[in-house]
Amino acid sequence: MKALEKRISEEGEALSSNVLKVGSFLNQKIDTAFMFEMGQEIACLYKNEPITKIITIEASGIALALAAAYYMKVPVVFAKKSKTSNVSGEVYRAAIHSFTHNCDYNAVIPKAYLSSDDTVLIVDDFLADGNAVIGLASMIGQAGAALAGAAIGIEKGFQGGGDALRAKGVRVESLAIIEKMEPNKIVYR
Amino acid sequence: MKALEKRISEEGEALSSNVLKVGSFLNQKIDTAFMFEMGQEIACLYKNEPITKIITIEASGIALALAAAYYMKVPVVFAKKSKTSNVSGEVYRAAIHSFTHNCDYNAVIPKAYLSSDDTVLIVDDFLADGNAVIGLASMIGQAGAALAGAAIGIEKGFQGGGDALRAKGVRVESLAIIEKMEPNKIVYR
Repeated sequence: MKALEKRISEEGEALSSNVLKVGSFLNQKIDTAFMFEMGQEIACLYKNEPITKIITIEASGIALALAAAYYMKVPVVFAKKSKTSNVSGEVYRAAIHSFTHNCDYNAVIPKAYLSSDDTVLIVDDFLADGNAVIGLASMIGQAGAALAGAAIGIEKGFQGGGDALRAKGVRVESLAIIEKMEPNKIVYR
Repeated sequence: MKALEKRISEEGEALSSNVLKVGSFLNQKIDTAFMFEMGQEIACLYKNEPITKIITIEASGIALALAAAYYMKVPVVFAKKSKTSNVSGEVYRAAIHSFTHNCDYNAVIPKAYLSSDDTVLIVDDFLADGNAVIGLASMIGQAGAALAGAAIGIEKGFQGGGDALRAKGVRVESLAIIEKMEPNKIVYR
């Protein structure tokens, strides 16, 4: 998606060789109209799949997931990062390592919200080492649901998570794939 | 909003006299079409205010904020709950007590995303004791921005946070206000 590459190049800040800040339009301040353009692009990429549900993980994946869901006319379920007092009953669970926060956490989805009848699209704002997608795919597998693929805003291609998933046969569509980041230069695949 | 009251009565679970679970359509599994109906209602309620930005707090406020922003054609900024490696630079900050999780946390918004030129609407899925709104209003005040009011999905009226804010002159519009919760009965204001 050329418009996303342009936006990353104009507003993104490479805080190091592998941390990219795009909070000005994607994941803290949200450019609403642009977020819906991204959602529409995802809907278009997966228009031939019989998707019944979008799964994402709190917090920054929720906006892109909802924007895609608007065009795909399906519900969104987001995995929560810990068991809280308002998650009751039986849950699917996966341990996920966060690249951004350098810590491990448990992601949970109540069993009532995902079933073997579902064909699921995973949506997230970023894909780095792929751990979030692997964790969400694990929960989809626990439910006996079908995985249609993953739709990502920005994939950091140089971290290899996307290609490792593709090598396992998972369809991964990223609206922008960054091959290399340097202080004043971002190279796209 | 009668449709929301109906939905709460049909699907909500009172886990105790003051914890209401509505994860099946509002804040873990999201009924996408219904979320946009709620967003449209918020846009209608505030249509005469010169709002330039919606502020919410991660994670469960993001979906309703984005749905309202879609109709109001404004950006969304969400406060993050701790300073992470991808929040850089100067921030507005507020300490907030979470009723749901029974803990205190810091909410932060980078200064670049909120300015004295903004007229801000606070959006959140729930309002209980009002601490999240008070914290967000504090950050709006730190920025010198104007506060147009708050738009809430479900207000737990019996916890008093909404009325305390109204008594201070803050406009609070809630799509449903629960006056009383009993195991098999929810009474609306």
